[in-house]
Amino acid sequence: MDSLDLMKSLAIKNDKKIIFLVIDGLGGAAHPQYGKTELEVALHPNLDRIAKESLCGLAIPVDYGITPGSGPGHLALFGYDPVRYLIGRGVLEVLGLGFNMTSDDLAFRGNFATISDGIVVDRRAGRISSEETKNLIDKIQKSIKKIEDVEIFLIPGKEHRFAGVFRSKRLREEIADNDPHKEGNKPHKILPLNNNKDTIFTASVVEKFISEVSEILKDEKKANYVLLRGFAKYPYIPKMQEVYKLNPVAIAVYPMYKGLAQLVGMEIVDECETVYDELKKLKELFNKPYDFYYVHIKDTDKLGEDGNFEEKVKKIEEIDKIVAEIFSLNPDVLVITADHSTPSSLKGHSWHPVPVAIWSKNPSTPKNNIEKFTEENFSKGMLGTIYSKKILSLAMAYTGKLDKYGA
Amino acid sequence: MDSLDLMKSLAIKNDKKIIFLVIDGLGGAAHPQYGKTELEVALHPNLDRIAKESLCGLAIPVDYGITPGSGPGHLALFGYDPVRYLIGRGVLEVLGLGFNMTSDDLAFRGNFATISDGIVVDRRAGRISSEETKNLIDKIQKSIKKIEDVEIFLIPGKEHRFAGVFRSKRLREEIADNDPHKEGNKPHKILPLNNNKDTIFTASVVEKFISEVSEILKDEKKANYVLLRGFAKYPYIPKMQEVYKLNPVAIAVYPMYKGLAQLVGMEIVDECETVYDELKKLKELFNKPYDFYYVHIKDTDKLGEDGNFEEKVKKIEEIDKIVAEIFSLNPDVLVITADHSTPSSLKGHSWHPVPVAIWSKNPSTPKNNIEKFTEENFSKGMLGTIYSKKILSLAMAYTGKLDKYGA
Repeated sequence: MDSLDLMKSLAIKNDKKIIFLVIDGLGGAAHPQYGKTELEVALHPNLDRIAKESLCGLAIPVDYGITPGSGPGHLALFGYDPVRYLIGRGVLEVLGLGFNMTSDDLAFRGNFATISDGIVVDRRAGRISSEETKNLIDKIQKSIKKIEDVEIFLIPGKEHRFAGVFRSKRLREEIADNDPHKEGNKPHKILPLNNNKDTIFTASVVEKFISEVSEILKDEKKANYVLLRGFAKYPYIPKMQEVYKLNPVAIAVYPMYKGLAQLVGMEIVDECETVYDELKKLKELFNKPYDFYYVHIKDTDKLGEDGNFEEKVKKIEEIDKIVAEIFSLNPDVLVITADHSTPSSLKGHSWHPVPVAIWSKNPSTPKNNIEKFTEENFSKGMLGTIYSKKILSLAMAYTGKLDKYGA
Repeated sequence: MDSLDLMKSLAIKNDKKIIFLVIDGLGGAAHPQYGKTELEVALHPNLDRIAKESLCGLAIPVDYGITPGSGPGHLALFGYDPVRYLIGRGVLEVLGLGFNMTSDDLAFRGNFATISDGIVVDRRAGRISSEETKNLIDKIQKSIKKIEDVEIFLIPGKEHRFAGVFRSKRLREEIADNDPHKEGNKPHKILPLNNNKDTIFTASVVEKFISEVSEILKDEKKANYVLLRGFAKYPYIPKMQEVYKLNPVAIAVYPMYKGLAQLVGMEIVDECETVYDELKKLKELFNKPYDFYYVHIKDTDKLGEDGNFEEKVKKIEEIDKIVAEIFSLNPDVLVITADHSTPSSLKGHSWHPVPVAIWSKNPSTPKNNIEKFTEENFSKGMLGTIYSKKILSLAMAYTGKLDKYGA
């Protein structure tokens, strides 16, 4: 019995409400200039007050030393083993562009490129503008809607980038890219990576798509070819309803997080553009019969990636006020954590464990003497250091959503 | 995907240098007479200074309550699951005697014994001297070099003990010992443990070897028979180069540790006889293009096994000065840990977690307020308690040798 089977056998439906607040990239690391982390420098009395009454610790999203992408980081928070359940690059790209995938879809990423005498001379087509890309995608999409029984959907991205899906029950993901990865080479053929007849069919459809596109683009100066890569089917992940008997809803601004939530069966809220919209939406939905509210706050991650320590500190201080409002909704459990750390000093995601606070109305919740919501203080919390995929089962336990195991 | 596959897919080659200092049996336990551990009594300002700037914690070599042998203890430090990758007893013995095994070899341990009327009357041949054993081994080896196409190599050990290998591509390890384990019994036949024809062949060759040896020894008073056990093939373990893209070198005095390092693909330095030779060699090799230096210091373990608390304390104080010299080489990461604990009070290896300090130039390394390099202080370190097999991936993360996992 794997851990999802165990959850499935123990999960109990009740009306207790869990708010799962994911402050993206919240965890940091000591900044050389300050000698402290963002959380150590920021003033966040509300986070601190909640931490003092919470089960606190550190969480490892994937494993020791592993820097998670947003996909694995989130899957772990939703209780799934992020090494077992993989989300292909194409799928994340398509979800990130806000496209609504179905389980028949084969997703991919694409670039416009420049080809001359059969040789790729510029893999990025001179980095044409997003506007030009949009126009070219419209033009292609107008002529190509289907190849054989395979529907095709294209989504423009930034600069020379786009993404798309091929839709048909017959498609397989085991096909090679056509991107030669170095200029001065011929593009590769789209090759099937096994002998399955559906795989061979998939490769032939993609190959045909590329040649039809080339024909459409043949008079373009720069963008006269497309390079496709990251082919990935919509992954099968057991839904949270099925595994945890939860009725979950996702409140997020950015498409990728909504897409990730949809993969595990969450209902998606579409209208939020700021964190204040999210708060408003959460308040609105709090009387609805959901029992799991995933709330995603993005800005901390962006500022960490920018290497902007001061602004990340300020953003944490701003979010602290929102935390107070969320807390005032009086949930049965409030989890505050992150999908990964994004230290400003590293300008990117990192492998550092993230703080996790599990606040609960349940009187059995251990209280800490933690004075401040910081990485180092949390390393001394009663929860210790755990894998992120274990957080959800704790939240469920503290809301009575898990039955006794064995007699 | 298992954890080595994950490492393989994420490992990045760069020229950052990791020194992995393994102070054998470093961890201790409170001694009844002193009420403190060896590390608590010893003065080791250099270890303490490094600990203060390191990510510190405790490491469990195999699992809670499991006392590791040197084999599993080291495999874990090299990033392998010590329960999945087993090194047979015969192999460790042969490596420990400094014999250079090949992947065709079937290793074993042997005893000289006394047999009378087909009954084993002394399993240790009256504990004949190492000198006598050496002479007998020479005599046997002179007459028996091969049986069928199987080459035979014998290596004398201490007192009545020896070891050896049978070399041929056809050999299998699934054969039973001939040691009856109790005196007054007949020696067992060497039986194949399955029906594979190579297994049956192996058993017949070993049986033939024993009977040829008996013939050679028939006039010996004490050592007129041999008991063989611990048959084990050279194990397949994926090399560190392949899994971690590292270019590793091992600096050790004792053959067993060099053998263990060789099993995982490390280059071996042969000329060291003392820890000072090791330090000299490390300095010499530090400008060479290695990126992983495994340095093994043995004496702490030996003194622990002797139950010599005072001398183990003194040895730690001596090693502390060597640590300062290693640190002055300015590696990108310096890991200081042990393959297992060897508390003097227990006179042997133990299951107690070992201290681990991961010092790194990377500014994102959490600093502790740890005042002294001891077991109890380290239990409060920010690393927490981890499995030893996770240490290497952390060392790699802090040197930028691991790519992001997932998008």
